[in-house]
Amino acid sequence: MHTKGGRRLPLRVALLGFGTVGASVARILVERPELANRIQLTHIFNRDVARKHAAWVPSTVTWTDKVDELFAAKPDVVVEVIGGIEPVGGWVRRALEQGAAVVTANKQLLAAHGPELLRLAVTHDMLLRFEAAVGGGVPLIHGVREGLAGDNLTRVSGLLNGTSNYVLSRMAAGGDEPMSVVLDDARRLGYAEADPSADIDGDDAGAKLVVLAGIAFRRHIKLSDIPKRSIRPISAADFRYARRLGCTIRQISLVEQKDEGFHAFVGPALVLRGSNFGLNMGANNVVTIGGQYGGESSFSGAGAGGPATAVAVVSDLLALTQRDRDHGEEWLPGKVVGAPPRPYYLRFVVRDRPGIIASIASTLAAEGINFDALLQEPGYPKDHLPFVITVEACEESAINKAVKAIIKEDFHAEPPLALPMLLGEDPRT
Amino acid sequence: MHTKGGRRLPLRVALLGFGTVGASVARILVERPELANRIQLTHIFNRDVARKHAAWVPSTVTWTDKVDELFAAKPDVVVEVIGGIEPVGGWVRRALEQGAAVVTANKQLLAAHGPELLRLAVTHDMLLRFEAAVGGGVPLIHGVREGLAGDNLTRVSGLLNGTSNYVLSRMAAGGDEPMSVVLDDARRLGYAEADPSADIDGDDAGAKLVVLAGIAFRRHIKLSDIPKRSIRPISAADFRYARRLGCTIRQISLVEQKDEGFHAFVGPALVLRGSNFGLNMGANNVVTIGGQYGGESSFSGAGAGGPATAVAVVSDLLALTQRDRDHGEEWLPGKVVGAPPRPYYLRFVVRDRPGIIASIASTLAAEGINFDALLQEPGYPKDHLPFVITVEACEESAINKAVKAIIKEDFHAEPPLALPMLLGEDPRT
Repeated sequence: MHTKGGRRLPLRVALLGFGTVGASVARILVERPELANRIQLTHIFNRDVARKHAAWVPSTVTWTDKVDELFAAKPDVVVEVIGGIEPVGGWVRRALEQGAAVVTANKQLLAAHGPELLRLAVTHDMLLRFEAAVGGGVPLIHGVREGLAGDNLTRVSGLLNGTSNYVLSRMAAGGDEPMSVVLDDARRLGYAEADPSADIDGDDAGAKLVVLAGIAFRRHIKLSDIPKRSIRPISAADFRYARRLGCTIRQISLVEQKDEGFHAFVGPALVLRGSNFGLNMGANNVVTIGGQYGGESSFSGAGAGGPATAVAVVSDLLALTQRDRDHGEEWLPGKVVGAPPRPYYLRFVVRDRPGIIASIASTLAAEGINFDALLQEPGYPKDHLPFVITVEACEESAINKAVKAIIKEDFHAEPPLALPMLLGEDPRT
Repeated sequence: MHTKGGRRLPLRVALLGFGTVGASVARILVERPELANRIQLTHIFNRDVARKHAAWVPSTVTWTDKVDELFAAKPDVVVEVIGGIEPVGGWVRRALEQGAAVVTANKQLLAAHGPELLRLAVTHDMLLRFEAAVGGGVPLIHGVREGLAGDNLTRVSGLLNGTSNYVLSRMAAGGDEPMSVVLDDARRLGYAEADPSADIDGDDAGAKLVVLAGIAFRRHIKLSDIPKRSIRPISAADFRYARRLGCTIRQISLVEQKDEGFHAFVGPALVLRGSNFGLNMGANNVVTIGGQYGGESSFSGAGAGGPATAVAVVSDLLALTQRDRDHGEEWLPGKVVGAPPRPYYLRFVVRDRPGIIASIASTLAAEGINFDALLQEPGYPKDHLPFVITVEACEESAINKAVKAIIKEDFHAEPPLALPMLLGEDPRT
């Protein structure tokens, strides 16, 4: 059996990595024998062969802990599900250079070296596919790259990190649990790593946003250029104030085409409770794509987990059996520009004394920022009193300048927190 | 410029039809000049040339009201956006037979003749693509067929008809408006046709469900085999009772793989208010796909409208520039089987007198159906009194038999209504 383009079927597939995702990929291939005439697993590279040997893997599969042995077998496709940038980046290059297509779930590698690897694939007339890199089993990459190819896409926004979604939606629903308690629960339930920094500080979502921007705009936005803010400072009081504003708080990832470049950020923001993002609870991923002609389309589902991510890998493998060649994809450099004017939520925790509001108000006025509302919930101690000021749409630079001035005052019990309010920017709200 | 498979680019595209979708396709091609080296619009077939001539269409495009003239030009692709089964079915066959790929938005044609047309495409080594046939701009077909190809899909459910969604979500939100009033509004706002029968009685959604089943399961389920019930009998009282059950009412389309065949239906059902379907308001389409490995993935967005549907058409055209050939797709015959046991909502409107509940209860008991709850809201007249009985999960045949017996009683002021309750069948609820 041959593909029309000339590649012989079944494709001989070598698997780099046999963790949760790798094992699930092998599992699907074993459990779906109808795929056998298109995809044949021939090699598994795994560093700790003895420990993880799985009896259900067919004996026709060669296990090895020597990557050279895998490459010597000249596989048609190398599936990379190890993660991290080195050494796997070198292995991905080596695969493309020796004429293997590559399927990877590695968002970090793509965020860091996507343009170079895509160019290398074009040079060697090979395909590099990565449906599994964003949103696990949610077919975002196929949906955006092919299903929405006819549109002129303008905006990608989403809840891209399951841990952050889980933590924030638990805090929104729950009593007055501090984030640390919710994080402990999340760890126990397997929703958070021992060190959740990459999740809650925005690096994980940022890497996914880089990949999505590549797909949607064919532009490479540097991960280091995307402003990232942690969800760590969000407290139970913030949810109480957000609720009074008809809102809740989510870790939002957003990239939007502007005349001069791309506005992008990852971090906590207020969204309307009845919006697409506000309604999404738990660890699910949600991505909304805006286009000039088609309006908003949303995708949601399990953003992580071995089986869901493995579905994406196998889907990519099946796509490779259908087409040997694509027009190569290229991500040109994309420039990050500042945020558009937006309303902001400013939360202060102060040791109360007269004159605080007057002081803050005059600093805001000095930056040309218009006061919208002042919210103060009862029941907090005088020496640790949270209150909120919302301001009308203004430049991010003005807010930053104002907060920098206000933070110098002596009345703060905690550092002030400024969150963007994304109200109705998502037309589905 | 050539595709790797050998087809010369740009693809010469002939457009059959210049209504809302056809005009939007032409508009996108004109407004996105970067597509010109891949897609070139050469002919537009339109019956009423004079009236619809659009000055913005480039003069290089040939307009004709003779379909033979269009075929004589030997286009690479024929885009069919006229709709209906004849004469366009014949034109689609003719296109494939003379070596043109076909892109169509025609769900009725696919529902009726999908298997035959797909076979014809394979025979002539041509592609037949139809992203636009379901869900307008929502990239369902690409997402399901390619992005979820790695999974073993088990279930497709959705809100597939914008008119019904709009009408039911308006009634759910609103006061006590009867459906006729909401339908009048919907017509005025362009959400409903003068004759909305195809929408509210389930034929439109049914045709889409046939196409989705083809994509998800590679099986052709006959439109006439799918049980369809109209949303017409739903009243304001039903929403009040549904709310007491934590539910709302939506027109659901569902197809699910069972051992012996497929369970499928289109019609009103109770869904939890906080579920994916319950939360969706307005005319948006939502589709949830369940798979053995990836769990549930959802897609949502504008299900109709010229520009959104045109995005799907242009996406298909771009996919054709990438690949000349697929493995042909085939839809084998699929058998429809009965519903699994489910709880049901039974609404009666009676002329009240003693003994009614006892009579209904004994009929239900005779069919082995277990009573769950009896709900009766105050404030209704004695001679037109609505009340609701919910029953535990039971066979659809038992419910039908019981309703058939109960309907013979003389106490009815309106025919009784039985609605399935889809509670937690959608794991995302």
